[in-house]
Amino acid sequence: MSETTLKITTGPLPGSRKIYVEGSRPDVRVAMREIDLTPGSGEAPVRVYDCSGPYTDPSMQVDITKGVPRLREQWILERGDVEHYDGRAHKPEDDGLKPGEVIGVPVFDRAAQGLRPLRAKPGKAPTQLAYARAGIITPEMEYVAIRENMKRAELHAAIVRDGEDFGADIPDEVTPEFVRAEIARGRAVLPANVNHPEAEPMIIGRNFLTKINANIGNSAVASSVDEEVEKMVWATRWGADTVMDLSTGRHIHATREWIIRNSPVPIGTVPIYQALEKVDGKAEDLTWEIFRDTLIEQAEQGVDYFTIHAGVLLRYIPLTAKRTTGIVSRGGSIMAKWCLAHHKENFLYTHFEDICELLKAYDVGFSLGDGLRPGSIADANDAAQFGELETLGELTHKAWAHDCQVIIEGPGHVPMHKIKKNVEKQIELCGEAPFYTLGPLVTDIAPGYDHITSAIGAAMIGWFGTAMLCYVTPKEHLGLPDKQDVREGVVTYKLAAHAADLAKGHPGAQVRDNALSRARFEFRWKDQFNLSLDPEKALAFHDQHLPAEGAKLAHFCSMCGPKFCSMKISQEVRDFAAAEQGMAEMSEKFVHDGAEIYHTEPVQAQQQAKPAAE
Amino acid sequence: MSETTLKITTGPLPGSRKIYVEGSRPDVRVAMREIDLTPGSGEAPVRVYDCSGPYTDPSMQVDITKGVPRLREQWILERGDVEHYDGRAHKPEDDGLKPGEVIGVPVFDRAAQGLRPLRAKPGKAPTQLAYARAGIITPEMEYVAIRENMKRAELHAAIVRDGEDFGADIPDEVTPEFVRAEIARGRAVLPANVNHPEAEPMIIGRNFLTKINANIGNSAVASSVDEEVEKMVWATRWGADTVMDLSTGRHIHATREWIIRNSPVPIGTVPIYQALEKVDGKAEDLTWEIFRDTLIEQAEQGVDYFTIHAGVLLRYIPLTAKRTTGIVSRGGSIMAKWCLAHHKENFLYTHFEDICELLKAYDVGFSLGDGLRPGSIADANDAAQFGELETLGELTHKAWAHDCQVIIEGPGHVPMHKIKKNVEKQIELCGEAPFYTLGPLVTDIAPGYDHITSAIGAAMIGWFGTAMLCYVTPKEHLGLPDKQDVREGVVTYKLAAHAADLAKGHPGAQVRDNALSRARFEFRWKDQFNLSLDPEKALAFHDQHLPAEGAKLAHFCSMCGPKFCSMKISQEVRDFAAAEQGMAEMSEKFVHDGAEIYHTEPVQAQQQAKPAAE
Repeated sequence: MSETTLKITTGPLPGSRKIYVEGSRPDVRVAMREIDLTPGSGEAPVRVYDCSGPYTDPSMQVDITKGVPRLREQWILERGDVEHYDGRAHKPEDDGLKPGEVIGVPVFDRAAQGLRPLRAKPGKAPTQLAYARAGIITPEMEYVAIRENMKRAELHAAIVRDGEDFGADIPDEVTPEFVRAEIARGRAVLPANVNHPEAEPMIIGRNFLTKINANIGNSAVASSVDEEVEKMVWATRWGADTVMDLSTGRHIHATREWIIRNSPVPIGTVPIYQALEKVDGKAEDLTWEIFRDTLIEQAEQGVDYFTIHAGVLLRYIPLTAKRTTGIVSRGGSIMAKWCLAHHKENFLYTHFEDICELLKAYDVGFSLGDGLRPGSIADANDAAQFGELETLGELTHKAWAHDCQVIIEGPGHVPMHKIKKNVEKQIELCGEAPFYTLGPLVTDIAPGYDHITSAIGAAMIGWFGTAMLCYVTPKEHLGLPDKQDVREGVVTYKLAAHAADLAKGHPGAQVRDNALSRARFEFRWKDQFNLSLDPEKALAFHDQHLPAEGAKLAHFCSMCGPKFCSMKISQEVRDFAAAEQGMAEMSEKFVHDGAEIYHTEPVQAQQQAKPAAE
Repeated sequence: MSETTLKITTGPLPGSRKIYVEGSRPDVRVAMREIDLTPGSGEAPVRVYDCSGPYTDPSMQVDITKGVPRLREQWILERGDVEHYDGRAHKPEDDGLKPGEVIGVPVFDRAAQGLRPLRAKPGKAPTQLAYARAGIITPEMEYVAIRENMKRAELHAAIVRDGEDFGADIPDEVTPEFVRAEIARGRAVLPANVNHPEAEPMIIGRNFLTKINANIGNSAVASSVDEEVEKMVWATRWGADTVMDLSTGRHIHATREWIIRNSPVPIGTVPIYQALEKVDGKAEDLTWEIFRDTLIEQAEQGVDYFTIHAGVLLRYIPLTAKRTTGIVSRGGSIMAKWCLAHHKENFLYTHFEDICELLKAYDVGFSLGDGLRPGSIADANDAAQFGELETLGELTHKAWAHDCQVIIEGPGHVPMHKIKKNVEKQIELCGEAPFYTLGPLVTDIAPGYDHITSAIGAAMIGWFGTAMLCYVTPKEHLGLPDKQDVREGVVTYKLAAHAADLAKGHPGAQVRDNALSRARFEFRWKDQFNLSLDPEKALAFHDQHLPAEGAKLAHFCSMCGPKFCSMKISQEVRDFAAAEQGMAEMSEKFVHDGAEIYHTEPVQAQQQAKPAAE
């Protein structure tokens, strides 16, 4: 891993190469990663899904002052349904500044990059949903099909479909037409703001690979531009499929611009946070006009999906009064406060169709927020939560009528036995719109370990049908995650999402597990590390006790030591059985050979190692 | 946390007090922990299960050269069915020494402590199973009932039984008679070697709280006596219900003695490891006589349960030949090698009734090992695994016929959709004998994070009915766990076991979640930390950004900062709703008061904090 002078992490992961698979036109070039395994092992390179963009391609020189390549720009323009316009004038309050105050951070030079905002021509609906409904397969859809499919078509014959998918409809091969059909019926979304042409197309839906989101956001102690971009790059390096920028405070407009211009993944936001900043944090001073202006501001920058808490209705708020932890969604609590202060219905609900029209013009997706999600085991699956979900279902159908793409946010804190009902109700009420959940945490008693309490719920809810899992870091409930927390959170959610794909019987998902297990069994240590989700940590853990290069060839590790390595003994057992001789013969030969099965490797360390597992 | 000069960690956890609840006789004094909450908060102390023994009781002075109090000694002797005898003579090879070689570590002075081994008088069966079948409620059973019950009886009225227990039979209140009945029918075990009177009675069974085991073991780099004892103390401090000593190599007899004499929890071992050491690591040289002698050696020391791989039958071995990862159990691979070398049936199987007679004399429990468990997703639920399970079922009934207590070990690596079948088959084949599983890991691709991949499987399999979960540390597959890995592994499994208890609807399990969630909602930060499984980590994470003492009273944390704290806003919402006024009135009052809901706390740090979760 090398770092540019701007501290952006670049370079490939260990043992990996960036490859590009071309589609039906030369500018559809789908980025993937291939992990090369030991020559002579008879193992083909393993192809894996890759969210990391140009940063892991050594042939690309990323200059964050210019942004990453705008790979979708031509596709957007050639459809002829959008037009450039001057855009909304930037206001000091967009960055939390007083009138006349000078901004304290560098500003991305849009003019130098020839950037002007795009929006729909009058009467047009430039959304992937509108195209899909019209029977059009966009280059974005083709890109997604190739990306999801990977080598699935080639592997097809070898794959035994084995899993329980709870009524999902996962195809043996992902075709562009399948992608189109799933988007058309609202069962998948392809986040693709016309002003974020830098994003590599990806898809969220329960018949596709389970995705994960990482939250980032600025803070008072870390506000340099390269640090903000680095957070996004770092999260995608470890596997974040989308990134939500949850910044608050000063310079959020400027920061967001830097992030979007350099992001290879879709960016989501919660616009009410910035709107609240514009009214000095007084929820009751929020207005539809201020909120609308904020939506336009962010849509012009290129935000791909907005969390909108339009389901927090006045009548649901009293249902939270007896809860153990009330309202734990920030957006939800802001809207609840507004509703109570004015004794009026939530303006996000009353203006919902206005919001639809606005989002449609840019193809910003809805992420309908679960403002009343449970914040404790005690509050799971209660009347407030399911009441709101019903309203989100109503709003889903409204948004679809406007050709807007929709995903639905979900809990939260839910004990294991109540998780499945969440998915079932969501599918039923929201017409199979993709579900996007935060965890859920399956117990409240482990602060400091909530990436784990939530990964248990996340793996299960992903299996049941959730399309995207929002990560939780070890710092959840306690403080600001640092870089290592982000990595821990992303890898934890990556493994949970993968576990879900395995359990759903996703074709091809097990290819990587099998390759890693073979490497493990054959003592190809470097292959085992390189095939893992976090090769650097795996290597570091191994080297803590056996740092010598020779140990990476040894037929044991420090966990069990050379005498007790079951893998080693087991390989011999296999050799005998494979010889297809009678068992008696095999036994005879074995004793006759006096097979000294315990290598006396030159590796010295840990000859009497401690076993960690029986 | 203080450390004695011998580096044993002692002292209570933050905010906690040791209490003792007396039973029907004064020497039944059940240790528990109570967590005191903020005075004036209206919160009663929360009582929690406590595995940590005298080390967390400041009134006890532990001298490891003397061992911890032998609280069961009187109970064992007064039953009149055991007798002291001279015991097996110690041999140099017990510690891996050549004849005449002097041992290089201190030896526990049994004579000075008046210790001589106990065993059954001729014709007697001094096992908890035999007593239970005879209708006898032992002091151990009463201890367990009080320990499991905690305040359940008092809480009873307030508890709503809510959960899915898959046919378990969890009572509202645990009575001594219930404990007896569960042991009598083999559905629970109470590990209690007559030579380990130091252990505090505990129970393993699916109608009781889900337990966890931590593995420890000596190593070449860490072989001082106090370090070995400290590993055990450290694991129980964080919540290990039993500890398996998987030491190999030199000094294992001496080390085991130190551990058992100082252990407040039952100790398990895999005797074949030591037997293998005695034949210089040559599996084919193992004999029944050497193995039997090792069982006696360890039974006299006080090991509470033995892993015995008696289900690895000759006919199952070829079934592993085409596996991706062959045989991954060390005991399993050793026995497979022996079987092949001699082309004979596994001597643990052919001598099974001899083993039963031996174990019965000391009340050592069987932990029937799953030598053929899957070591990869690809091998899960295959013919070798389930073939062996069938044999373990047969052996369970044999052991029961000899009044021996039995638990059954289980996998391993299993994708989520195949976990439930493991429990169902185990219950069916093994007559509801307690299941004891290692994870299972739900994917193979995350070395470095396998405490998490396995915690997902562990929480689920615990929910389905597994009675005890064997922990996995982050170092699994890679190397020797260090102290922090042990803590991470134990806490991770503690949270998984608790999640299982919640989902099963265990009465009282949610009391701690609710108390912690109320503390969280009311910004009682210290209560939140102290109620968590790892109070020290929770505090450290919080203090990373807000170290000032005042921040522990603040109505926000560094995660969302003061403007965006949903808990804070939500409390106001609650106040209004609770006033039981009309909504319009409430709204009016709210605006009139001009309620400045965002505290302007004196805490300076992180005024513009980064949000970690929407």
